[in-house]
Amino acid sequence: MFKIAVLPGDGIGPEVMEETLKVLAAAQEKFSFELACTNADVGGIAIDRHGQALPEATLELCEKSDAILFGSVGGPKWESLPPARQPERGALLPLRKNFNLFCNLRPAKVFPALAGASPLHPDIVGQGFDILCVRELTGDIYFGQPKGREGSGPDERAFDTMVYTRREIERIARSAFEAARLRNHRVTSVDKANVLTTMVLWREVVVETARQYPDVTLNHIYVDNATMQLVKNPHQFDVLLCGNMFGDIISDECAMITGSMGLLPSASISESGFGLYEPAGGSAPDIAGQGIANPIAQILSAAMMLRYSLDRGDAADAIDVAVARVLEEGVRTPDIAAGGPAVSTREMGDAVVRAL
Amino acid sequence: MFKIAVLPGDGIGPEVMEETLKVLAAAQEKFSFELACTNADVGGIAIDRHGQALPEATLELCEKSDAILFGSVGGPKWESLPPARQPERGALLPLRKNFNLFCNLRPAKVFPALAGASPLHPDIVGQGFDILCVRELTGDIYFGQPKGREGSGPDERAFDTMVYTRREIERIARSAFEAARLRNHRVTSVDKANVLTTMVLWREVVVETARQYPDVTLNHIYVDNATMQLVKNPHQFDVLLCGNMFGDIISDECAMITGSMGLLPSASISESGFGLYEPAGGSAPDIAGQGIANPIAQILSAAMMLRYSLDRGDAADAIDVAVARVLEEGVRTPDIAAGGPAVSTREMGDAVVRAL
Ligand SMILES: CC(C)[C@H](C(=O)O)[C@@H](O)C(=O)O
Ligand SMILES: CC(C)[C@H](C(=O)O)[C@@H](O)C(=O)O
Repeated sequence: MFKIAVLPGDGIGPEVMEETLKVLAAAQEKFSFELACTNADVGGIAIDRHGQALPEATLELCEKSDAILFGSVGGPKWESLPPARQPERGALLPLRKNFNLFCNLRPAKVFPALAGASPLHPDIVGQGFDILCVRELTGDIYFGQPKGREGSGPDERAFDTMVYTRREIERIARSAFEAARLRNHRVTSVDKANVLTTMVLWREVVVETARQYPDVTLNHIYVDNATMQLVKNPHQFDVLLCGNMFGDIISDECAMITGSMGLLPSASISESGFGLYEPAGGSAPDIAGQGIANPIAQILSAAMMLRYSLDRGDAADAIDVAVARVLEEGVRTPDIAAGGPAVSTREMGDAVVRAL
Repeated sequence: MFKIAVLPGDGIGPEVMEETLKVLAAAQEKFSFELACTNADVGGIAIDRHGQALPEATLELCEKSDAILFGSVGGPKWESLPPARQPERGALLPLRKNFNLFCNLRPAKVFPALAGASPLHPDIVGQGFDILCVRELTGDIYFGQPKGREGSGPDERAFDTMVYTRREIERIARSAFEAARLRNHRVTSVDKANVLTTMVLWREVVVETARQYPDVTLNHIYVDNATMQLVKNPHQFDVLLCGNMFGDIISDECAMITGSMGLLPSASISESGFGLYEPAGGSAPDIAGQGIANPIAQILSAAMMLRYSLDRGDAADAIDVAVARVLEEGVRTPDIAAGGPAVSTREMGDAVVRAL
């Protein structure tokens, strides 16, 4: 029996979560395992109800759980708060740090049936591409000290510290190489070793770690060139390995070029296998409450949870296959319907349950 | 009489520079001004001949000149050197710092006739877009101190410091607002104020500076979202204002999505109007020496030099118009010919001279 902390959050979070729980219920029945799901507030709704994006009670629930199934947070209502108190930053950064979720996996895959939705030229997209972004999530300039402001007048200065230890780099590099072994055995490490000392160490340690994975091909790319190559020829990449800051940028670009943001899940995992699972897209406040949001990213996030935190690869595979089948059958929410006939959030959820 | 330091560099640098000097000669005749051009080595060729990417003699020539016309540097031959000694890093960073070239202007414009070359979907590109990237070039994590390595074993750590002063931010913000006044009066400032203290100050100072430009509309975008919006809808941007690190990434993405890297110039300018002018693309060693490189980026860089450092906007305008006319006439080097009939580097140079 697994305990799941369910944090639907804001915007479309609650409605896509509802469909996901239906799919998880069907999976439990089919694969005979039991989930005990408990809801808690996070993000904007938590600010409204409890005064902070990540209330103590929510954190406690997460601590007693085996995994966190996260919806999405944020919306115009909370955009004028100071950055550190906003829903996204105020909920996600403490969760990542508190649970040591160092490994962020973000698959950016184009389903062949949806290749037309990509913002890239059809000649470039072809039948689709399949990239896995592996982003370090608890180090780098996000958390590095010192961080602060000093002085006054025109000389006032603000600063942040980019920092990585050998241990941190090796740990995330291993995750990338292991992931590549289950895919096409290629890792491209993204850095800026021509300018940043941190990234010189990054490249050194990645090269050393690669020696233990002789079956995986490693190459290196500067982050500026990476943003270009992704647009020019995304097919050249298999696994992209990035630090926290560059991974923030690159993984979002990867997601966008698929054209199917509403389909992309993500996992943020600790060494012990605890994890937070959330869709790659945002809370989409503009379409929230209309019952038209695409629940697939949330459903696939639940599949990642089964695979990485609950060791139920069988159920995860089955959900992945069910989603692929539903897409092949042409079932489409408005975001992927290209103006054609579309189903509701609920109908999409039902279709996945049926396919399962 | 203006003194120009001409640094052709490596790869296609020398051949596109030759065409550019022809165009500059024609412009001098037509607009009656005089340039004294002196060549010097930079980049890989300077490493081969003098042991360093930026030899003392080259630096001295630049110091005695009114502007630097820079080709491009780098190539496979020097890729295994330690990063700091490589042609790009070893030449460009010291030049920027030495001459205080804080303001990097990188226009990313799609010529309507070449809209088909963009790697973006034709529905997104439409008739083309026109973005100006304004990147701060002498601060940020590129030059911030401390920078270093310490400790050993798994705890060995490397670090860099992201830092900006109020003065530095205001200076580059002014450049962006001034530039926007000559365009569509919109500035989008790229930051990561939800995570980085430096970027909180960045946003504060940009907002304050904006008060002096009430005719310019300012908005803000997080860098991760910026990489996505550029791909999704580049038309939404007019001037993009970035720090050094994010500008490195964003300006390259901007350049790539135009699909016409061989057409994009750049300027790196100091407060006194001294500047370094170089094509946005690289040294393209794969096609060097074949006489097929596109000289337009270099020619337009020379036009920027006339405009920003030599106060000859008349000649700059004329060169811009000549290039546009040549492209409208359908003259194409192979990189923009889409497989159709193409001219040589020299023929393209001749066509621009004729149009002038
Ligand atoms: C909300 C923000 C703090 C966060 C980040 O920068 O990591 C987000 O952009 C992400 O990628 O999950
Ligand atoms: C070569 C490198 C140091 C440089 C930079 O990072 O600024 C380059 O990428 C650029 O954008 O001019």
